[in-house]
Amino acid sequence: MPGLIYLYGMDRAALVKNIFAKRSVLCVGLDTDLAKIPRHLLQEEDPAFAFNKGIIDATKEFAVAYKINTAFYEAQGVKGWQSMERTLNYIPKDIFTIADAKRGDIGNTSEQYARTFFHTYPYDSVTVAPYMGSDSVKPFLQFDGKWAIVLGLTSNAGSADFQLQQCGNELLYERVLTTVASWGTPGNIMFVIGATRKEQLQEVRALLPDHFFLVPGVGAQGGDVDTVCRNAFNKDAGVLINVSRGVIYAGSGEGFAAQVHEAARKYQQEMAVYF
Amino acid sequence: MPGLIYLYGMDRAALVKNIFAKRSVLCVGLDTDLAKIPRHLLQEEDPAFAFNKGIIDATKEFAVAYKINTAFYEAQGVKGWQSMERTLNYIPKDIFTIADAKRGDIGNTSEQYARTFFHTYPYDSVTVAPYMGSDSVKPFLQFDGKWAIVLGLTSNAGSADFQLQQCGNELLYERVLTTVASWGTPGNIMFVIGATRKEQLQEVRALLPDHFFLVPGVGAQGGDVDTVCRNAFNKDAGVLINVSRGVIYAGSGEGFAAQVHEAARKYQQEMAVYF
Repeated sequence: MPGLIYLYGMDRAALVKNIFAKRSVLCVGLDTDLAKIPRHLLQEEDPAFAFNKGIIDATKEFAVAYKINTAFYEAQGVKGWQSMERTLNYIPKDIFTIADAKRGDIGNTSEQYARTFFHTYPYDSVTVAPYMGSDSVKPFLQFDGKWAIVLGLTSNAGSADFQLQQCGNELLYERVLTTVASWGTPGNIMFVIGATRKEQLQEVRALLPDHFFLVPGVGAQGGDVDTVCRNAFNKDAGVLINVSRGVIYAGSGEGFAAQVHEAARKYQQEMAVYF
Repeated sequence: MPGLIYLYGMDRAALVKNIFAKRSVLCVGLDTDLAKIPRHLLQEEDPAFAFNKGIIDATKEFAVAYKINTAFYEAQGVKGWQSMERTLNYIPKDIFTIADAKRGDIGNTSEQYARTFFHTYPYDSVTVAPYMGSDSVKPFLQFDGKWAIVLGLTSNAGSADFQLQQCGNELLYERVLTTVASWGTPGNIMFVIGATRKEQLQEVRALLPDHFFLVPGVGAQGGDVDTVCRNAFNKDAGVLINVSRGVIYAGSGEGFAAQVHEAARKYQQEMAVYF
């Protein structure tokens, strides 16, 4: 498995090119919840895919990445995995794809997860939890054009429980960032940085000048685009700002796609001024 | 969702009763890899399930739990989830089931994972990664007779990278154990304790006298049953010792089940002396 190139892997140069062409760092999060999608779609054979198709069509002009939150699909069992696969196949091949799956286990098991999200389902990247250390992360770094996006600082209240605890001279998440960064390169590792405060973003960027950060927490969770762009951009942009609920549930009823298109456009316009 | 009782949830009293009846704390890990199962099974319509069925039949006399390592099933896509579901349904209802899935995310996403492994697939428990803190773990604690088994100290080399780092007056995994324990009870939280050394087991047991520990690392990973039983048992036994490769790949060829039965029996006999 290691060393092979699977379909659709996207290297850094291609990602950066797309970001600059679109003047956007918008990642649209497909956290598709059947209880929240427009009701007319529930008559479709695959309602989750029908919704995602509408969202992708409405946002692909502005999005440089799509993030599929696997939990929402897994909860539907086999049907959900089929919706996920249809969605992944429908995403234009020049847009970066993220399996937001938060996986990580001992080496032989992480290898199976890498197979799942790089081969069985040919994503460009998968989110990875760092708690189990090097041998849990390294199996995700063996694929050309594929990325591990490792949890650094998350955007939820629980991040204070462990990530923000003092460990020696630094906070735990700072140790995670610098340690994990040493296992790969800015070409195969990104980090989840759910920072919404200026100082935190500046500090993390100073710690890791070259890496891409996947930044959740904008929109429903309270973060804002300007603060992230102003404080975390590097020469390659270096961030992907994820918005889930703020885009995908921006519309309602049969005309939901027009409002979703408008929401994505607004986010892209906020981002464009930083290029 | 919270508060409902789903099929097959197993509370602590029922688990302990089963352990004492069998004089066993053996958990058999179904890390089923199609590349390693007896070749004649590859002709079956569902080779992974055919293998698991053989393993369950051969070990159910001695096992008090089965742990399904979801990665090995996810890697096969929809077919794998179908094998997993058939396997889960085949496990006798009086034996505790563990989805070894290492999930954990922000609250609304952990809720979806809890739905996946407690409802869509009615496991008794799921393994959970603690890095994202309280709101990532608590959604798993809202179900009667269902358990979160949270990573404390894992058995792999990478556990040294973060878990064994000094955080204030304690090591990170010690902080994780005591903090996570405060979010629930010894009736809905267990911990993964991959300790193979006497001192570590004694120290963890002193820290958490009442909780159950799921102990991996015995067999292929080098740990031994006696050290675990001698140093980590409490009045309810309080441990589930997982063996994966050491049991399920103990046999080969068409008669594999007899050797697997014998391997499980040997483990049970080692455990029986501690009752």
